[in-house]
Amino acid sequence: MDAIAKRCREGGFDQHLIGLEVLSMDGKRATAKITVGESVANLSGNLHGGAIATLVDDVGTLAIISADKQNRPGVTTDLNVSYFAPGRAGDVILIEATALKSGRTLAYVSVDLRRESDGTLLAQGRMTKFL
Amino acid sequence: MDAIAKRCREGGFDQHLIGLEVLSMDGKRATAKITVGESVANLSGNLHGGAIATLVDDVGTLAIISADKQNRPGVTTDLNVSYFAPGRAGDVILIEATALKSGRTLAYVSVDLRRESDGTLLAQGRMTKFL
Amino acid sequence: MDAIAKRCREGGFDQHLIGLEVLSMDGKRATAKITVGESVANLSGNLHGGAIATLVDDVGTLAIISADKQNRPGVTTDLNVSYFAPGRAGDVILIEATALKSGRTLAYVSVDLRRESDGTLLAQGRMTKFL
Amino acid sequence: MDAIAKRCREGGFDQHLIGLEVLSMDGKRATAKITVGESVANLSGNLHGGAIATLVDDVGTLAIISADKQNRPGVTTDLNVSYFAPGRAGDVILIEATALKSGRTLAYVSVDLRRESDGTLLAQGRMTKFL
Repeated sequence: MDAIAKRCREGGFDQHLIGLEVLSMDGKRATAKITVGESVANLSGNLHGGAIATLVDDVGTLAIISADKQNRPGVTTDLNVSYFAPGRAGDVILIEATALKSGRTLAYVSVDLRRESDGTLLAQGRMTKFL
Repeated sequence: MDAIAKRCREGGFDQHLIGLEVLSMDGKRATAKITVGESVANLSGNLHGGAIATLVDDVGTLAIISADKQNRPGVTTDLNVSYFAPGRAGDVILIEATALKSGRTLAYVSVDLRRESDGTLLAQGRMTKFL
Repeated sequence: MDAIAKRCREGGFDQHLIGLEVLSMDGKRATAKITVGESVANLSGNLHGGAIATLVDDVGTLAIISADKQNRPGVTTDLNVSYFAPGRAGDVILIEATALKSGRTLAYVSVDLRRESDGTLLAQGRMTKFL
Repeated sequence: MDAIAKRCREGGFDQHLIGLEVLSMDGKRATAKITVGESVANLSGNLHGGAIATLVDDVGTLAIISADKQNRPGVTTDLNVSYFAPGRAGDVILIEATALKSGRTLAYVSVDLRRESDGTLLAQGRMTKFL
C-alpha cells in the first residue's frame, strides 16, 4: 500500500493532489483523505470538480487493484460523478471506494466523497475499468 | 476570452493544466488545446483520466458561459467521460466543447478530445450545470 | 404508497414492467421487486438493459418523492447505469433506491439491482432530478 | 437490416416501443424514428425517460453492430442519458446513433434524440459495450 500510495503522490498529474493520504486498501475497499487547499481548488476556493473526478479515478483504482487477484489497475472506459455540495477550503474530505465487481476483464467501483467533520456526502462517482 | 483563459490558467487546480491554450469561445462552442506533458500525465506517461475530466469541466464551462446570455458558469451537477484511446506524451490534444442546451436554470455541454495529428477521438464527456 | 405503485403499474411505459411490486417507501429509501419475464426481456431472455434503466428511473423516483418534503417527483436531468451481470429469466430482482441528496431544487438517487436468491449485484444506477 | 429491425420490434421489452421504425444502418451510423404514443409515455403523457434509455440502447446497438466487422452486438457495460426537453404526445422523434469507437473488445456509441418537426435536441446518451 505504501508503495502504491507513494506512486500516486509522485506521479505526474497526481502530484497536484497535495496532502492526499491513503488510509487503507483492504479487500474490495480503499479509503483516503485530503484537506482542501489551493492546489485542488476552483476559482471559488472550493474543491475543483476535476480534482473530485481525479480522486474518484485514483482512489477507485486502488480499490480495483485491491479487489483483483492479480492487482491489475486496468484502463478506464467510463467515469461519472454527481456533485451534491461543495468541499470548502480547509475541509477534510474522506474518499471511500468500494469495488462493485471485480471480474476477469472488467471491474467497477463506486466512490463516495464526504466532509469528515459532519459526514455530509459531497459527491459520488462510479468508474469502469477494462483489466 | 483572454480574461477567462487567464483565470483558467491561474486558478488553483487549473494551474496544473500546463500549456492549456483557449483557441475560441463563440456562440455555443469553445475550443482549446494542450500538449501532453508531465504535469498532466498518469503513471504510464499518458494524459491522466482525471486531467481529461478536468478538461471536460473547464472547456465545457467556457462553452456554457459563452452560450448563456448572462455568461453564468453555473455549478456542476453531473459529469461523465468515456475513454477511447490514450493521449501519448507529446501529443497535441484538441478539446472541442459544444453546449447542447442553454436554458434558464440548466445547461448541458458535450466535449470531444481529439489527437490533433490524426483527428483520433480519444475521449468524450458530457456535463450538466445548474445555473 | 399503494396509490403511487398503482400509478406506476398502470401508466404508459411503466405498464410493461409486468409484476413490479413496490415493497417500501420510507424516508429516503424505496424498494421494489420484479421477476424477469418475457415482457422485460432482451433477445437473450435476460432482463433488458432498457428495462433496468426504467427500473432505476421509476424506483429512484419513488425514493426521491419519499425524501422530498413536498413529495415532488421532479424531472430527470441525468441518468446512468453500469451493468455487472445478467438478470436471468425467472430471477427475482430486488431494486433498492436511496436518495443521496434531497435539496430545494435538485435531488439525487442511487439504485442497486440485486438477484434476490444470492444477493449478487446486477446493476447500479444514479439519477439526478430537477425539482 | 430488416431482420435486425424485426428482431428489435418483436423481442420482449423492445416490443413495447410501438411504432419504432429503423431508417438506416450504414457504416458507423444507425437511425430510427418513433411517434410518442401511450405505450412509451410517462404519467405526463411525454416520452418516458426509461423509453429514451431503451431507445439509446437499441438504436445504439444497431450502430455498434453496423460498425463492427463481425456485427457483434456486445454486452452493455455502461449507459448514460442527459435529458434536455420533453417529447410530447404525437411528436415524431428521430434517433441518430453514431459509433464513436469500434474496437476489438470495446465499442462506444453516442445517440441523439431530436424532435423531427423542429430539430430540437431532446436527449443525448452514450453507451459502452464489451464485444
